[in-house]
Amino acid sequence: QETDTLDQAPSAKKWFETFNIRGYAQVRYNRLLETNPDLQCEQCDRSWGRNGGFSLRRVRIIFSGQLHERVYFYIQPDFASAPNGGNTLQNFAQLRDAYLDLGLDRASQLRVRIGQSKIPYGFENMQSSQNRLPLDRADALNSSLANERDLGAMLYWAPTATRQLFGKLVRDGLKGSGDYGVLGLGVFNGQTTNRPDQNDQQHVVARVSYPMALGKQIIEPSLQAYSGNFVVTREQLSDGVKHRPGLSYPDQRLAASFVLYPQPFGVLAEYNIGRGPEFNPATDSIETQSLNGGYVLLNYRIQYQQQQFYPFLRLQYYDGGKKHERDARSYTVREAELGLEWQPLRNFELVTMYTLSSRRFEDFQRQNNRQRGGLLRLQAQLNF
Amino acid sequence: QETDTLDQAPSAKKWFETFNIRGYAQVRYNRLLETNPDLQCEQCDRSWGRNGGFSLRRVRIIFSGQLHERVYFYIQPDFASAPNGGNTLQNFAQLRDAYLDLGLDRASQLRVRIGQSKIPYGFENMQSSQNRLPLDRADALNSSLANERDLGAMLYWAPTATRQLFGKLVRDGLKGSGDYGVLGLGVFNGQTTNRPDQNDQQHVVARVSYPMALGKQIIEPSLQAYSGNFVVTREQLSDGVKHRPGLSYPDQRLAASFVLYPQPFGVLAEYNIGRGPEFNPATDSIETQSLNGGYVLLNYRIQYQQQQFYPFLRLQYYDGGKKHERDARSYTVREAELGLEWQPLRNFELVTMYTLSSRRFEDFQRQNNRQRGGLLRLQAQLNF
Amino acid sequence: QETDTLDQAPSAKKWFETFNIRGYAQVRYNRLLETNPDLQCEQCDRSWGRNGGFSLRRVRIIFSGQLHERVYFYIQPDFASAPNGGNTLQNFAQLRDAYLDLGLDRASQLRVRIGQSKIPYGFENMQSSQNRLPLDRADALNSSLANERDLGAMLYWAPTATRQLFGKLVRDGLKGSGDYGVLGLGVFNGQTTNRPDQNDQQHVVARVSYPMALGKQIIEPSLQAYSGNFVVTREQLSDGVKHRPGLSYPDQRLAASFVLYPQPFGVLAEYNIGRGPEFNPATDSIETQSLNGGYVLLNYRIQYQQQQFYPFLRLQYYDGGKKHERDARSYTVREAELGLEWQPLRNFELVTMYTLSSRRFEDFQRQNNRQRGGLLRLQAQLNF
Repeated sequence: QETDTLDQAPSAKKWFETFNIRGYAQVRYNRLLETNPDLQCEQCDRSWGRNGGFSLRRVRIIFSGQLHERVYFYIQPDFASAPNGGNTLQNFAQLRDAYLDLGLDRASQLRVRIGQSKIPYGFENMQSSQNRLPLDRADALNSSLANERDLGAMLYWAPTATRQLFGKLVRDGLKGSGDYGVLGLGVFNGQTTNRPDQNDQQHVVARVSYPMALGKQIIEPSLQAYSGNFVVTREQLSDGVKHRPGLSYPDQRLAASFVLYPQPFGVLAEYNIGRGPEFNPATDSIETQSLNGGYVLLNYRIQYQQQQFYPFLRLQYYDGGKKHERDARSYTVREAELGLEWQPLRNFELVTMYTLSSRRFEDFQRQNNRQRGGLLRLQAQLNF
Repeated sequence: QETDTLDQAPSAKKWFETFNIRGYAQVRYNRLLETNPDLQCEQCDRSWGRNGGFSLRRVRIIFSGQLHERVYFYIQPDFASAPNGGNTLQNFAQLRDAYLDLGLDRASQLRVRIGQSKIPYGFENMQSSQNRLPLDRADALNSSLANERDLGAMLYWAPTATRQLFGKLVRDGLKGSGDYGVLGLGVFNGQTTNRPDQNDQQHVVARVSYPMALGKQIIEPSLQAYSGNFVVTREQLSDGVKHRPGLSYPDQRLAASFVLYPQPFGVLAEYNIGRGPEFNPATDSIETQSLNGGYVLLNYRIQYQQQQFYPFLRLQYYDGGKKHERDARSYTVREAELGLEWQPLRNFELVTMYTLSSRRFEDFQRQNNRQRGGLLRLQAQLNF
Repeated sequence: QETDTLDQAPSAKKWFETFNIRGYAQVRYNRLLETNPDLQCEQCDRSWGRNGGFSLRRVRIIFSGQLHERVYFYIQPDFASAPNGGNTLQNFAQLRDAYLDLGLDRASQLRVRIGQSKIPYGFENMQSSQNRLPLDRADALNSSLANERDLGAMLYWAPTATRQLFGKLVRDGLKGSGDYGVLGLGVFNGQTTNRPDQNDQQHVVARVSYPMALGKQIIEPSLQAYSGNFVVTREQLSDGVKHRPGLSYPDQRLAASFVLYPQPFGVLAEYNIGRGPEFNPATDSIETQSLNGGYVLLNYRIQYQQQQFYPFLRLQYYDGGKKHERDARSYTVREAELGLEWQPLRNFELVTMYTLSSRRFEDFQRQNNRQRGGLLRLQAQLNF
């Protein structure tokens, strides 16, 4: 037997008892009843619109475990990522999460999270795609952080009872966010998931979120904000677009969230304001502009024998830039979505969703571009 | 403990009892007794010929399991893939399979397969590389689908007894294909494995394959066909090559297969005809051309104590294009291979194979290119 | 249940009893007390210096096991690799090791290793990054092989008692190298990890290393050498740099190593000489030049209850080229590092290290480049 590393030591536990492996996968088809093939959304799902066929949106395998009273880890590669934006070869493995939690007390009420993890900004951003009802996150808050994550160090605090409640809200099918603390505070690079830092400054983020019982109902209001300087990279620029000399732009946001968990009727509403880089078609340049937007999601939970049904309606609005897209592309989004998630089994879910959308998305290469239309979207999800 | 996802629930089963992890790896060396370093085969094995050394042909880790009476899944990344065609950095992880099967009856005699999976076209294409005797698949049928797979939805039907037989043919070392149904019917994108769709149409495929006992022997005849429009992508084109305006070409094939399983003498024969894009050196253009070709494999199984020996001979012919290569490269292939697979242990196999080949492969950049020669090829295979 | 592959057979063992999965991850921050942001080291850690922020240096998941008395395997992807040098998208999965060991006797005293594995050249190169004290390997010997590995076949021999000692030196926290034999002999492609061969020749390597007890202390002296021809690839060249017509350069090295394992005081010293391609600023060309360099590491082990502390000091020197970098970049390195590794738990380690460095690194695009400075470096390591 090889021994080129520290032995798994005199513990009585076998390796498979010390951590878990699990995962999920999403297969989509977005072309039914489509009225406008030019209606697309790069951050949402690249297989929207013209020439899109079947696609793998996410294929995740998660290695995680409470290794020690004070040490928890979570490593999650995605196997449906593309090195070149996905126009040619797809489905390479790329990290989403890779972090460890160090408990600063025995119950890990206060803990430090080190590595690449979700930045605590927005409830829907924190909620796993495995649990979210609409197929994609709403533009208003998701435009803050491509793939929701970054590299840094976070401090989370929550009392043990609240930590248990965070767990229960996911476990019981109430579509919770998981435990990102009642209080969260962090520093991170600021260039978003899997992208190296581009300046000598860190972003800072703070969040407060408090789930509480009101009679039989549970609500969770949150406030969160982050601030830093984002560097638009040269790879993002069109030839000829004007920009600040150093390509550095302020990147600041503030958001409020409110959740009423579906027992059986639920509401999820979020709104944010801020400023950041955004392409301006009037001047052909990337400028610091203000942004704002949010959404309301109404949902209802129906349990029939072992089956779960979640009809939902989401209305969203966003006016601002997407800093991680070409020329910090400019957006105005108005969208309504009506859908149903059906879980006949714990291992399989089917989402059907009708989207009615008006999207203006403009960069240096594509100006005067407002697209309206409707489409039916389908997703089969595997949970293992 | 973190709970950012649905709990693994009140099942008594541990995670490692709900699915399996296994894998295999192939290390090759192709340069012994080589007579012509310009004799190469891009789809077969990039380490053939000039400057090729040791190489990893496949490194696979497979996550699969029957999660529920009606839900089966199979996720298989390959860790020997390359984002840029492998000329520089190699051995990245990229998906091969990622699918789930939904049983439409309790015994899953009829099931829907959703995701990226093998397209049921050709016996050798269905057979795992872990089990195949010759090191590479024959050009005639493998040219239909690079890496044998695509994204889509398939319907498979087989009676329970036949499903058990499909399993037994692999388990008993008879080199079966696995269970792709007695009847298979599907729709898929048509651009082959890990490549996004390029048009607004789907390919369709149908297959019938029926294994049956004739005395002590088992045979399996099959018929299969697919049809669609393939789009040659701009990344594939040489500067200056002529082509249809929209780069869309009909892509249609029909194949017959016959298997006599090796007890101890075996035969595997396949032939296909069709049409698709192919570079024409006479006109410097990519044109729709007809194609045809097939192969015969003779093999014999010798069991000595725990060891297995499979001597084999394969003769193949192909005349047609390879739609996924540069300029839909034009081929005429005549090849004879004589080899031996030796399995001293279940975990280790060694294949030695002598190849005598005449290959014409021409694209806009490389015309008048017919290469003949012989070489000895070696492969060590790990099974875990 | 699917059966498209050989069954896991009539063994009584479950899949999770036949092999292990384990891993480790390293998160770094290198910018504290930094005096010169132009002081960088590409091979060491790309997040040194200007614009570097938090980074994932390694995220490893290891699949390994003794499958049979005579068959051992080891497959190790890294999930913090980048296809394009890491300037844009990062954290893709790429192989480090993928090999199998075949025991030629029942105790595997003599074994053949086939696949991609560490080339037995240098003690620090063999030692896992999970166990090494300084954050990066010293330039002098690590410049021999980017990522320490290559594809080929190795023969290792060691008596059973020594194999057990190799294991114990890692298991007991003495920072051993693992078992690369008392004698090692191998052939390999020569272009280093995950890069295809570029010529029709193989490199050869030989090593002898013998750990032995002297009273209560254990020492291990080693000698090792390799020889071959390295091909500088066109992707590495700056426009305008001069070079040999075929880009092939002799690549030869000889090294001596000495270890005194820390009970409690330890010493690790290595030195190597050789020749290889190196950019020459005086002639703007890549030339065959001699190289030499080495290092001394002093360390001390303190055990306090369950905790481990390892203060260390390393002094290193290197004068020569790095064949795998742009234009075979030319280096003169003088560096002192003072650090402390603290293991409060088996699952978590923290390294703090102060580096004082003078580095000349010059290629065609960046000449007259000598950088001096100091910086404090931090690493949190997870072991699972």
